[in-house]
Amino acid sequence: MAAKMGSFKHSFQEKRERLLSTNKMGFFPIEEQEPHAFSSSRRCCCSFRYLSDKIVGWCRTVQGVAHRAIKMGKSDPRKIVFSAKMGLALTLISLLIFLKQEPFKQLGRYSVWAILTVVVVFEFSIGATLSKGLNRGLGTLSAGGLALGMAELSGLVGEWEEAVIVASIFIIGFIATYAKLYPTMKPYEYGFRVFLLTYCFIMVSGYRTREFIHTAVSRFLLIALGAGVGLGVNILIYPIWAGEDLHNLVAKNFMGVAKSLEGCVSSYLNCIEYARIPSKILTYQASDDPLYSGYRSAVESTSQEDTLMGFAIWEPPHGRYKMLRYPWKNYVKVSGALRHCAFTVMALHGCVLSEIQAPADRRQVFSRELQRVGYEGAKVLRELGNKLKKMEKIGPVDILNEVHEAAEELQKKIDQKSYLLVNSESWEIGNRPKELGEIQDLLDLNDEGNKFHEYKSLSEAVLDLRNFPGSQSWDDPVPAKPASLNASPHDRKPSNLPVPSGKLFMKQISWPAGMTFKAQAEPQVEESSTYENASQLSLATFTSLLIEFVARLQNLVDSFEELGEMALFKEPVDLPEPLESQGRFWTRFLDRLKS
Amino acid sequence: MAAKMGSFKHSFQEKRERLLSTNKMGFFPIEEQEPHAFSSSRRCCCSFRYLSDKIVGWCRTVQGVAHRAIKMGKSDPRKIVFSAKMGLALTLISLLIFLKQEPFKQLGRYSVWAILTVVVVFEFSIGATLSKGLNRGLGTLSAGGLALGMAELSGLVGEWEEAVIVASIFIIGFIATYAKLYPTMKPYEYGFRVFLLTYCFIMVSGYRTREFIHTAVSRFLLIALGAGVGLGVNILIYPIWAGEDLHNLVAKNFMGVAKSLEGCVSSYLNCIEYARIPSKILTYQASDDPLYSGYRSAVESTSQEDTLMGFAIWEPPHGRYKMLRYPWKNYVKVSGALRHCAFTVMALHGCVLSEIQAPADRRQVFSRELQRVGYEGAKVLRELGNKLKKMEKIGPVDILNEVHEAAEELQKKIDQKSYLLVNSESWEIGNRPKELGEIQDLLDLNDEGNKFHEYKSLSEAVLDLRNFPGSQSWDDPVPAKPASLNASPHDRKPSNLPVPSGKLFMKQISWPAGMTFKAQAEPQVEESSTYENASQLSLATFTSLLIEFVARLQNLVDSFEELGEMALFKEPVDLPEPLESQGRFWTRFLDRLKS
Repeated sequence: MAAKMGSFKHSFQEKRERLLSTNKMGFFPIEEQEPHAFSSSRRCCCSFRYLSDKIVGWCRTVQGVAHRAIKMGKSDPRKIVFSAKMGLALTLISLLIFLKQEPFKQLGRYSVWAILTVVVVFEFSIGATLSKGLNRGLGTLSAGGLALGMAELSGLVGEWEEAVIVASIFIIGFIATYAKLYPTMKPYEYGFRVFLLTYCFIMVSGYRTREFIHTAVSRFLLIALGAGVGLGVNILIYPIWAGEDLHNLVAKNFMGVAKSLEGCVSSYLNCIEYARIPSKILTYQASDDPLYSGYRSAVESTSQEDTLMGFAIWEPPHGRYKMLRYPWKNYVKVSGALRHCAFTVMALHGCVLSEIQAPADRRQVFSRELQRVGYEGAKVLRELGNKLKKMEKIGPVDILNEVHEAAEELQKKIDQKSYLLVNSESWEIGNRPKELGEIQDLLDLNDEGNKFHEYKSLSEAVLDLRNFPGSQSWDDPVPAKPASLNASPHDRKPSNLPVPSGKLFMKQISWPAGMTFKAQAEPQVEESSTYENASQLSLATFTSLLIEFVARLQNLVDSFEELGEMALFKEPVDLPEPLESQGRFWTRFLDRLKS
Repeated sequence: MAAKMGSFKHSFQEKRERLLSTNKMGFFPIEEQEPHAFSSSRRCCCSFRYLSDKIVGWCRTVQGVAHRAIKMGKSDPRKIVFSAKMGLALTLISLLIFLKQEPFKQLGRYSVWAILTVVVVFEFSIGATLSKGLNRGLGTLSAGGLALGMAELSGLVGEWEEAVIVASIFIIGFIATYAKLYPTMKPYEYGFRVFLLTYCFIMVSGYRTREFIHTAVSRFLLIALGAGVGLGVNILIYPIWAGEDLHNLVAKNFMGVAKSLEGCVSSYLNCIEYARIPSKILTYQASDDPLYSGYRSAVESTSQEDTLMGFAIWEPPHGRYKMLRYPWKNYVKVSGALRHCAFTVMALHGCVLSEIQAPADRRQVFSRELQRVGYEGAKVLRELGNKLKKMEKIGPVDILNEVHEAAEELQKKIDQKSYLLVNSESWEIGNRPKELGEIQDLLDLNDEGNKFHEYKSLSEAVLDLRNFPGSQSWDDPVPAKPASLNASPHDRKPSNLPVPSGKLFMKQISWPAGMTFKAQAEPQVEESSTYENASQLSLATFTSLLIEFVARLQNLVDSFEELGEMALFKEPVDLPEPLESQGRFWTRFLDRLKS
């Protein structure tokens, strides 16, 4: 079925065609790489040239890898430190092999357990290391105890010993595996694994060598040694704290959302449209788009935050976090409240992305107010982010004062100018209660797409009427009978319009000249302008979402204050605000970027 | 500073107080549990009663655990099967210990490696098992090769052997750890761990026993045996496929978003307000709220999908996915496109949650159209979800036809009634071009919050004027001089209003009676109504977001069609649509739930 020009369906179809072409473009880069990667292997294998090409290619690969490795090290030097620490811990453990005197000889024999423990327990952050170490310790201890008890039991049953051992392995395997699948057991998943491993190992190995206790004890000692070396190296040398990471991540999210907010407002006001919306945004994948990446990282960091929090609660008081039971949970809560704000920024970005766009001149009317709300909102976010970084309370000032004022100003402007947010061209008459129908006709008759036109025509019609009671300014006055009223395209349901005859006359004489022409022309126009009209509300949506964003800031500030109380943030020092200029710099920078 | 009643700041403060009380309530459940958990241990320890209480408490705990375990098993029986498989695999490996004849005796000695491999490699889904198995295999092989080579080398240097071994361990430890920190290496993290472990083990153990090759080979054989048993049991007995899980997860997300969409529209139309917004929603944590949980699970499943996709690509063709290189990536893409739609649903929910609400009677005006768009939109989502489940193409029908029609109808209604979406009470005069200012005054003068009132007053004023050229219906006509015009509260900027004197008279006589009262009353009213006026655009935002949702459906359908092409979905069979009634059932069900 062919869609009517300008109707929703037509515009949706257009969009679809555009999207399809976008998709094609979006896919190529992925597909393209593969033939390229294989192309070199298709060449003739036996020439010197092939060999030299291979060597050059290999050198380039090595170069590329080295380059990327250096880049990673520069961007996060902690990764280099961590790798060196890992090497050091393994080296320390391997020194065991040089202990060849008798009391330590046994130690060397079981050194594999110490190595295994170091490799497995040595994690990037202290919290993760401690959590894994504890899991391993608990798993080993409980499994060791259970295995020793079970070994004693199985020894008692005599010839059924093997059967008891095998059955116990099956039962313990079943129970431990089932238990670790329970959702709240997720953090102890590794502990269950170790438990299972230790139990099976002690049973099997003990049965073979008949040294149950020896196996269990030596295994435990070596594991303790490995854990000790791993923990010692990891904690004593340049420790990397998960809590610090969580703190920085949350602070970074504040900046990202602020950047996106300012970017969205400024793009919207500068009417920056995406010539082609990146298909990555449409399918919510990571993209370099600056407006998108800012809020996306805040929205996307949920699982990362949960992981970091899970590790941070294991960490002892340290550095700036000198407090037992530090409220890490509240950092995640603040981030959640920020996310709740970020969703509004996401919706604002949706307005920028949307096919349905408000006309540029109407946006300009609210430009100053929108800009101010965007700027003040971003300023609040940056200020909160900086306070979080510096671990400062908000203090006695009302941090939201200015953004609320800006929002109020915007709202006042909307109140004054809300006629710009709607399109009065198609206001119906027939369906409205009868008393309301009359003057509206005046509004409807002269519509020609001019944004102020309805008011102009309305006021002029009324004023003309009064200045010149006759109809000398109209070329072709419409005859004053009900039939002509029904001919109006606006009265699609004539039965709904029981117009009192006394008022009817007034309506007739107030109709201006264009009327009869309009009556013929409009049926088509009306159908085709539906889509265009949809754009009228886009600006209303944008401003309304912006105000909703401001409303959500309160929740964020509350969460922040709660965090400040619980984490004993320090009182703010009164410094000349350096944020202001930084914020302005960003606004200017982003503006320049967009223009 | 005290905020003015009814202003933004005042309402924000009110909100804040409400939020604080909410927060307190929101926290209690978490805090409450802890004292409860410890309370029993505070009792006197030495009485018989204490002992019996302990036993009863312990029994209850066991009962509770058993109950939860049974519940988990009922909700996902695969977990029971998986646990039994794990037990079986361990049992099979432990049978090694009964091989006491000579050729197998050695096998028993190294059985720990087989056990370790089974415990580590045995994952829930086949894809994860294969991926871990491959990581383990590759890590062991490459580390074994490298270690053997290095052992040969270290043997050549004579007395510096120990130094070379220790240095190599440090260097290999550093490089492997650094490499695994590179973001794209994440899926191979386990491989690097195994590599490191194997390398260190062979070097250390080989140095001690001088049986480098023997250590490496026996280790590899046992690992292969463990991997073989693990894979065999996991794949041959009731395999659990990650791909199937991904498929079901995406289909489930469709239903969740559809449910949320319908719920949001129906809550909005029934003016269901949250007496207290759950603080979990405000901080984006999981909550039972039916509107919230539907879209949240779709938004939140990103990392789960990525993990499942990472496993699914390892899985061989199976069941309904009989195809090499099955396009699992496209499932994630469809889910991303669905997420892009879900963000609009989230914004719609934001309108329901918002403090700023449109009056109920105005919502009712658009009720039928909004309901229809919500219903049709949810129908499309459910249909796509069911088609995905059944792996059916969309076919030649335009699945979006009805929802587009519904959206068009809604848009037409908005065009006709958009005067309901704005509040003309505060339309300014002074700033508008002067020709437009006059008649607007008529609109502004009679405002009393009645939704149709501005039109009524306008039309009546005009009509009254004409029917009765005198001013007999007005109690107290305003004197016809410019001074009184400036006294009007609407003319806050008198200098901007150069009214031609000829027209001025017309204005004066059209002022109705209430004017002078208004002129005194309004200065306060204007300040305090700012917040109230913000609500006027809320309905516009809701409808606009709903239309944006419909626009985004196209993108979803495109992604779906692409998936259908690439995954060779079957052509749809023409059945009498059972979806319709199901969809209606849900609508009715949800409606009943809300009412």
